[in-house]
Amino acid sequence: MAKEGAQRAEETEQMIEKEGGKEAAEGSAAGSLRAADAKEMRAVVLSAFGGLNKLRVSKRVMPEPREGELKIRVKACGLNFIDLMVRQGNIDNPPKTPLVPGFECSGIIEALGDSVKGFEIGDRVMAFVNYNAWAEVVCTPVEFVYKIPDDMSFSEAAAFPMNFVTAYMMLFEVANLREGMSVLVHSAGGGVGQAVAQLCSTIPNVTVFGTASSFKHEAIKDSVTHLFDRNADYVQEVKRLESFHCLPKLSCVCFHFHLEAFRISTEGVDIVLDCLCGENTGKGLSLLKPLGTYILYGSSNMVTGETKSFFSFAKSWWQVEKVNPIKLYEENKVIAGFSLLNLLFKQNRGGLIKSVMDKLINLYNNKKIKPVVDSLWALEEVKEAMQRIHDRGNIGKLILDVEKAPTPLMANDSTETSEAGEEEEDHEGDNENKERMPFIQ
Amino acid sequence: MAKEGAQRAEETEQMIEKEGGKEAAEGSAAGSLRAADAKEMRAVVLSAFGGLNKLRVSKRVMPEPREGELKIRVKACGLNFIDLMVRQGNIDNPPKTPLVPGFECSGIIEALGDSVKGFEIGDRVMAFVNYNAWAEVVCTPVEFVYKIPDDMSFSEAAAFPMNFVTAYMMLFEVANLREGMSVLVHSAGGGVGQAVAQLCSTIPNVTVFGTASSFKHEAIKDSVTHLFDRNADYVQEVKRLESFHCLPKLSCVCFHFHLEAFRISTEGVDIVLDCLCGENTGKGLSLLKPLGTYILYGSSNMVTGETKSFFSFAKSWWQVEKVNPIKLYEENKVIAGFSLLNLLFKQNRGGLIKSVMDKLINLYNNKKIKPVVDSLWALEEVKEAMQRIHDRGNIGKLILDVEKAPTPLMANDSTETSEAGEEEEDHEGDNENKERMPFIQ
Repeated sequence: MAKEGAQRAEETEQMIEKEGGKEAAEGSAAGSLRAADAKEMRAVVLSAFGGLNKLRVSKRVMPEPREGELKIRVKACGLNFIDLMVRQGNIDNPPKTPLVPGFECSGIIEALGDSVKGFEIGDRVMAFVNYNAWAEVVCTPVEFVYKIPDDMSFSEAAAFPMNFVTAYMMLFEVANLREGMSVLVHSAGGGVGQAVAQLCSTIPNVTVFGTASSFKHEAIKDSVTHLFDRNADYVQEVKRLESFHCLPKLSCVCFHFHLEAFRISTEGVDIVLDCLCGENTGKGLSLLKPLGTYILYGSSNMVTGETKSFFSFAKSWWQVEKVNPIKLYEENKVIAGFSLLNLLFKQNRGGLIKSVMDKLINLYNNKKIKPVVDSLWALEEVKEAMQRIHDRGNIGKLILDVEKAPTPLMANDSTETSEAGEEEEDHEGDNENKERMPFIQ
Repeated sequence: MAKEGAQRAEETEQMIEKEGGKEAAEGSAAGSLRAADAKEMRAVVLSAFGGLNKLRVSKRVMPEPREGELKIRVKACGLNFIDLMVRQGNIDNPPKTPLVPGFECSGIIEALGDSVKGFEIGDRVMAFVNYNAWAEVVCTPVEFVYKIPDDMSFSEAAAFPMNFVTAYMMLFEVANLREGMSVLVHSAGGGVGQAVAQLCSTIPNVTVFGTASSFKHEAIKDSVTHLFDRNADYVQEVKRLESFHCLPKLSCVCFHFHLEAFRISTEGVDIVLDCLCGENTGKGLSLLKPLGTYILYGSSNMVTGETKSFFSFAKSWWQVEKVNPIKLYEENKVIAGFSLLNLLFKQNRGGLIKSVMDKLINLYNNKKIKPVVDSLWALEEVKEAMQRIHDRGNIGKLILDVEKAPTPLMANDSTETSEAGEEEEDHEGDNENKERMPFIQ
């Protein structure tokens, strides 16, 4: 991600210190009173890279739009796996803390910066933001803002940009999904996985193989053609099954699974979408058909605990197969990487992404796609929401609903008003003492 | 390449020994008389892997079509760089010698194997063959045979399949060439290079950057937008030029080149097509725009002398950058390999290639593309033809014209009737003592 977003977070922090003193930045009542009412807002602040306890809701100085920017009164924010990696500092070239996390939101335009055209105050929009999305107000360049259809809720709109643009660009810009092809997607129950499944269904006769935790299979079985358990060694299963010569002898329950695995083994798949990294890269490449495309779009295997683990990082880095192009030549294979955030904020491809958004909104209007929202959480519930995505408990997208009041706690928990901040010690199982009942859609 | 083709070469060799004795295989007059007239044919035979002296024209037993095959009376054969690598044994999993080289030809159907449909005796066709193309008669499965348009000459048809299918599939199946994109192609004056340039011109507003020996620039300048010298360090030039801040101060002649190089440096290219390998892989990847695709489709840098050089091979192998998928993720890049021969003969993609040929023939009929033939050579002139492609002297395709009589020699040369065979010693500069005047179109 570009430094600009992080710089702005830092500037905001400095402004708060200037205007309201350190207490305002920490959200104390004294600070709130000294800063002008209209210039403050609530935001999720990451005080330092680390565990869940580094997150709290604080008062921040409200940003104002610069030239070419829009100011958005936020209604809902998307929570993505990359936000966990940001929290841990487990990303390339991390920005400075404290910062406000979050890369996407939906809301209503509240003000226009100079030379902004095409939008009006009051427009319902969704947007990409280079950090700072998890707040009551954000400012972002106009090229990252898109009007939302009348019948799209703010929750849906906050679940839309990252997942659907990622899925669409991988399938249609990097690979070239066409009729009759097959796609393997990991984390099929996640936000991107569900977007991939829906977009595949817009092309005739596409077979989708997905991996997901078994408890999700019942819920997502209609969106994916064939499901494997998340922990199954799918490649090993396939190879083992090649030695079976008498498929009809297999039991009925196994037969369906074995037949599909067998089909993969003999045919391979056209597109592998991998958000796990590590050893799955080599596995994915081995499952490709000739002219097939493997796309790495995340490295969630690097996240094993609540805080950054050098061991997990090193394991993922070394397990990932370095690819010799001569091998790709012999096997007629394609390997690609896709990072939407880098494309947006480092590589200036906002124009291309705008054209993709237009196509996606058209698909939404024609009822071909619809974001799957797993659950809504108040800003104060961000830790529980993060724990849920860490535990792969979600089916579809987790949304921070800015206007939602926190669900009453089931056990004592006062971390959102804690003053301890960075001094708190990391403790594993941070979620044990604060079980809320999320609002599940 | 699949073993089958090589096996057939071996079988043919054995048949000759059975029917006509060793002398027939060596093309002696005595052998010719003993074998039935209708069952013999001339062919280029590679007696062992090595230099040009391993090639000679010999009599071989004529093949008959098996089930699903067509028998073709050959008019012309395509000569490709891969044929040099086959001669040297510089390929993965090489077949046994002696063998008849050649992977494509054009001609007239002379007989149909059992269960062949869609063709008749007398049809004008072009075809892929898994070895054995450089002969008066070949047999090949019907799925590799395509009827040729009435106004396409046999020379053009022999120049068509390998180069245009390779170029088309790289641009439109592996990459996704669209309006406004840019393409860098090495060996722009070669058969594939010229096919790439022509196919790019069928899409609006595509910029083609090509590298080629300077002496070809005048001849091919209309087909390629911008040319660099083959030996120029194009990436270094680009980087050096980034330090220029006063472009208008440059001389007029340099200005055009520098401006283009500058444009590459700031924008990058969308597609890099590399038939060289080695260090060019890293260079090509570095020149890609985000979402750009690098395709390796050959490794001609491995060929430095007349015979296989372990040093060249090792240099190419080690110089080629092993790619970490995580780097591709960060940079949003795509790397691919493309081998048409593996796709055809190892990976059974004949059906897909048939559909590509249909599109290409349509483009030819609409006068959008036309094979560039460099020169025609008699079978007996195969060594000189190979030397020409080795020296990168060609512009477009070299064709072996089966009905052409050898051009009178300018110096004594009797290698095509030599009996020495494998016992001959390799000698560098094999082409020095046999300068013919090729028929240049």
